[in-house]
Amino acid sequence: MKVGIIMGSKSDWPTMKLAADMLDKFGIDYETKVVSAHRTPQLLADYASGAKQRGIKVIIAGAGGAAHLPGMAAAFTSLPVLGVPVQSRALKGMDSLLSIVQMPKGIAVGTLAIGEAGAANAGILAAQILGTHDEAIMAKVEAFRAEQTETVLANPNPQED
Amino acid sequence: MKVGIIMGSKSDWPTMKLAADMLDKFGIDYETKVVSAHRTPQLLADYASGAKQRGIKVIIAGAGGAAHLPGMAAAFTSLPVLGVPVQSRALKGMDSLLSIVQMPKGIAVGTLAIGEAGAANAGILAAQILGTHDEAIMAKVEAFRAEQTETVLANPNPQED
Amino acid sequence: MKVGIIMGSKSDWPTMKLAADMLDKFGIDYETKVVSAHRTPQLLADYASGAKQRGIKVIIAGAGGAAHLPGMAAAFTSLPVLGVPVQSRALKGMDSLLSIVQMPKGIAVGTLAIGEAGAANAGILAAQILGTHDEAIMAKVEAFRAEQTETVLANPNPQED
Amino acid sequence: MKVGIIMGSKSDWPTMKLAADMLDKFGIDYETKVVSAHRTPQLLADYASGAKQRGIKVIIAGAGGAAHLPGMAAAFTSLPVLGVPVQSRALKGMDSLLSIVQMPKGIAVGTLAIGEAGAANAGILAAQILGTHDEAIMAKVEAFRAEQTETVLANPNPQED
Amino acid sequence: MKVGIIMGSKSDWPTMKLAADMLDKFGIDYETKVVSAHRTPQLLADYASGAKQRGIKVIIAGAGGAAHLPGMAAAFTSLPVLGVPVQSRALKGMDSLLSIVQMPKGIAVGTLAIGEAGAANAGILAAQILGTHDEAIMAKVEAFRAEQTETVLANPNPQED
Amino acid sequence: MKVGIIMGSKSDWPTMKLAADMLDKFGIDYETKVVSAHRTPQLLADYASGAKQRGIKVIIAGAGGAAHLPGMAAAFTSLPVLGVPVQSRALKGMDSLLSIVQMPKGIAVGTLAIGEAGAANAGILAAQILGTHDEAIMAKVEAFRAEQTETVLANPNPQED
Amino acid sequence: MKVGIIMGSKSDWPTMKLAADMLDKFGIDYETKVVSAHRTPQLLADYASGAKQRGIKVIIAGAGGAAHLPGMAAAFTSLPVLGVPVQSRALKGMDSLLSIVQMPKGIAVGTLAIGEAGAANAGILAAQILGTHDEAIMAKVEAFRAEQTETVLANPNPQED
Amino acid sequence: MKVGIIMGSKSDWPTMKLAADMLDKFGIDYETKVVSAHRTPQLLADYASGAKQRGIKVIIAGAGGAAHLPGMAAAFTSLPVLGVPVQSRALKGMDSLLSIVQMPKGIAVGTLAIGEAGAANAGILAAQILGTHDEAIMAKVEAFRAEQTETVLANPNPQED
Repeated sequence: MKVGIIMGSKSDWPTMKLAADMLDKFGIDYETKVVSAHRTPQLLADYASGAKQRGIKVIIAGAGGAAHLPGMAAAFTSLPVLGVPVQSRALKGMDSLLSIVQMPKGIAVGTLAIGEAGAANAGILAAQILGTHDEAIMAKVEAFRAEQTETVLANPNPQED
Repeated sequence: MKVGIIMGSKSDWPTMKLAADMLDKFGIDYETKVVSAHRTPQLLADYASGAKQRGIKVIIAGAGGAAHLPGMAAAFTSLPVLGVPVQSRALKGMDSLLSIVQMPKGIAVGTLAIGEAGAANAGILAAQILGTHDEAIMAKVEAFRAEQTETVLANPNPQED
Repeated sequence: MKVGIIMGSKSDWPTMKLAADMLDKFGIDYETKVVSAHRTPQLLADYASGAKQRGIKVIIAGAGGAAHLPGMAAAFTSLPVLGVPVQSRALKGMDSLLSIVQMPKGIAVGTLAIGEAGAANAGILAAQILGTHDEAIMAKVEAFRAEQTETVLANPNPQED
Repeated sequence: MKVGIIMGSKSDWPTMKLAADMLDKFGIDYETKVVSAHRTPQLLADYASGAKQRGIKVIIAGAGGAAHLPGMAAAFTSLPVLGVPVQSRALKGMDSLLSIVQMPKGIAVGTLAIGEAGAANAGILAAQILGTHDEAIMAKVEAFRAEQTETVLANPNPQED
Repeated sequence: MKVGIIMGSKSDWPTMKLAADMLDKFGIDYETKVVSAHRTPQLLADYASGAKQRGIKVIIAGAGGAAHLPGMAAAFTSLPVLGVPVQSRALKGMDSLLSIVQMPKGIAVGTLAIGEAGAANAGILAAQILGTHDEAIMAKVEAFRAEQTETVLANPNPQED
Repeated sequence: MKVGIIMGSKSDWPTMKLAADMLDKFGIDYETKVVSAHRTPQLLADYASGAKQRGIKVIIAGAGGAAHLPGMAAAFTSLPVLGVPVQSRALKGMDSLLSIVQMPKGIAVGTLAIGEAGAANAGILAAQILGTHDEAIMAKVEAFRAEQTETVLANPNPQED
Repeated sequence: MKVGIIMGSKSDWPTMKLAADMLDKFGIDYETKVVSAHRTPQLLADYASGAKQRGIKVIIAGAGGAAHLPGMAAAFTSLPVLGVPVQSRALKGMDSLLSIVQMPKGIAVGTLAIGEAGAANAGILAAQILGTHDEAIMAKVEAFRAEQTETVLANPNPQED
Repeated sequence: MKVGIIMGSKSDWPTMKLAADMLDKFGIDYETKVVSAHRTPQLLADYASGAKQRGIKVIIAGAGGAAHLPGMAAAFTSLPVLGVPVQSRALKGMDSLLSIVQMPKGIAVGTLAIGEAGAANAGILAAQILGTHDEAIMAKVEAFRAEQTETVLANPNPQED
């Protein structure tokens, strides 16, 4: 288990699934779990503070609104934590984004874009982090990137489907 | 000790002092303490989960930026928690406000205005809450309110100092 | 009648109903009433200034747009007032939120999140306020909170329904 | 007395003074008064509901933050009410603006720009309103407008003082 | 013809119609016309500068996006101009609002809320302006306001249709 | 005279001067003039509609707040118009930006950044536009660009002055 | 080939098509191509730096979110670059707009409105730029503008279809 | 050399210095360099695409306004890139933040808070990333974190200096 993907609610899964899909693509083991900063704060403390022991290398945390999960996970672990602002209903994720990214000096959360793109990119960034010391993973990231580039290059005409 | 005033950093004191001043005015016992959600998450858990035992009736929590202190305090206690968004440097407290007020269904934070006005009002609201079951406090709140009204009525001319 | 739930328009009811539902869950008596700050200002003055007399302990006020109901209710009573910003059409409740939360020093409104989550949490916070002096209500709040926590703990897998 | 200029606090006077100055320029009688929606709600009700009786034709109301004064004045009178959003400390008047302009259907406030420009323009718009039925005032407005135009035309070079 | 209702595009009519409906309710004569600040600037200049001659007393101007119609109409006339920010597609009318309300010192636009509420209120405010010197119109405004109040008072229960 | 630099007020000159400086650097003739959309609308109409006749190729227009100058200039000419949002006091130029950039379909304004950077870039973009058919100007733009690049390359160490 | 229309993704085509349609209307040759700043940075560098050689006079670049395409295209060419902020999902194009328009001093992007209006206007502005040195194109722009004006003038009644 | 700290301008150094200071504290080798996405795009391409070869493990990129440096660096490397939004003059870093964090699916930037806190946290997050495979660095991060916690715990009284 290299990556822990946690989220504040089951309703975040359709977004966070894109992080899992990306890790699947890179063949990286991960676990997924609902951990609510507000409804299960002790579980959050336990999860985050125990993650390194269990071999987790990177935590991806997604939440919406007053999104405290990523920052509080970071408070309980020395592992790198990546935050995904889930799109909220009224404010469209601007609240989620500011709640995650504007961390005070001393505790860091690497924040990705609001919504699905951010979740997918959290998966990619987790792989890049692991890839700094795992040639096989980095090779897969680079292959994915090359393929992504090729897809654009092979379909340069916007007027075709 | 009826009210606990906590804040994420000593730098929040010039703002949060206004809550304390207001409680002083009402003769309500309180304690003040720096409790950082991010730098001392365990202290936060201990403080909030033990507050009711120690006789605290209301928690006032102030923080800035990705302000997780009020919401996380609320997660660890059944006491009413009032949140004060401290004005932040870049985004002027809009980040603090959204991080505090946009709590998900299930855990509530009664949020006040950004900055000093919000801190003073947190003190007033705490007194109003205590006043719902303490005639003496409610009488002091009402006297303060009446005096406040009188001050405006006695100085109706904006062109005089 | 412990809690008064007022709102600026019948169209706010689908939102504010969540406050009522929460109070139902805690077995707390409440009344619901349409009171428009702008269309019935005298009713608002009468309602708010008479609420304490009638035994009301907490007022929950919901409104959208230039939402003056919570702040004006607070101006006419010494009871604690909780404000719920109802999601508005164009600005999605950002106008409602700022109109409610940015109260000047001297008159406080404890503001909850925009929309349904905020309404539900207003119900919870009202119960917490009553619970500071009513063991039975506090016990119900704590049971609700425990159940809420259990629900998350019992369903940790986001990939299952 | 043709125009009533009210404001929520003495601290609004440096802004609202520009409305008074403009009315002075047009030779229009006015009164100025501190009327706080939150601290003196009954005064507000009395002032606004009695203004027409006293011969007032237009009310100019300035306030900052959760600025309820213009909208509540409009709720208590059938006179036209012009609202001036006073620049607030944290949010720079965006809260003041939205609290004033986003009135629900049924009660109107003619809102001007944030701060001094808005206050001056409230004075001009009040004069224009009076001018719809007072040739002398309209003539003064037109003279002011012509002079204003001349000033620009006579100083076309931005590089000169 | 007492009121001119102009708008930047036919697509603004569903919004601006509410201003016309309100004037119909008060029995006030008005005209409606598409006048685009950007596509027909000369028509705008002609319309606004000739309006007073033709007996128009108030101009209501609605536009969306970079909404220049109200401000430019005000630049070409000494009549009071009321601006209605039409809800725009991407930014939901925040662009329309700021483009209309943030007029520089010297030329005033009385701005209403974004969208339909603002259009209806422009009709009401126009009537109030005319009513400052027309008892019959003011009586109709007051009757409308009284009826509006009665409607709320007669239907106080939000839980009934 | 190849470029006309207009601005709504003399107070915009410290910003707009950077456009002039840039044109000086490229040896491009220009004129500067205060033209207020609101205070001198007829001058604006005359200036913009006559500019092409007088040999102007590009108009640079700067204004703040409800900034109508660039869009209205564009309405009166078929020349390319570049808009510079001047930083406003309360809203820091966000109002200026939206008022300029959010033009409706049919009339275009090429908008630059808020403030001095935007003014300087308006000068550069005007030169690039002229450069599409003037080799000498394009050569100067390219030399400026090369020099700009060299300056960065020659001073790669951020820790040195 | 006078104009290059590039966009970050095929999904931008429904927006960017309006730029192409406008150029079609003016009979201006153009090419369309998907060029992703992030997925094909080398293609972007090659495209932009080679565009002038190939006879391109103006580049129109559309992108959404953290929209780097217009600014990076401008970094690699001395041709004028026009930027179209494509409406994004969560933030409705505010992110796209700020990412494109807020360029630092030294590299300019002439930015149009968010979405379809902006794309159409990019086509018009490109034609206006070409028209500064091509009488035939300018004549077509002016005919389009005249027709656009006529269409409004011929349909002044908003109440008719 | 484990970490490359790049920034768009020398003026970003007072902010980005906090990233360097943090790496100094952890004894991690780094280099600092001015690399402008807009003024030196080829240098950016060369720097980012060659970084991995040269042994760099993490890139920290800071920029303000339409901040393209972090995203474009990420486009040219498979290394993890951390982005720091430097506070901008007009929009206070909101433009910088959105330009960096709202990356499209496929290329990730781990974004930190606006300004100095974000720069410091970029240094910490880089150390955490290296620490996932370097026990000595992780031990230093944990010591720093423990010390940071101790500092708060040892100074709980906000009222003392």
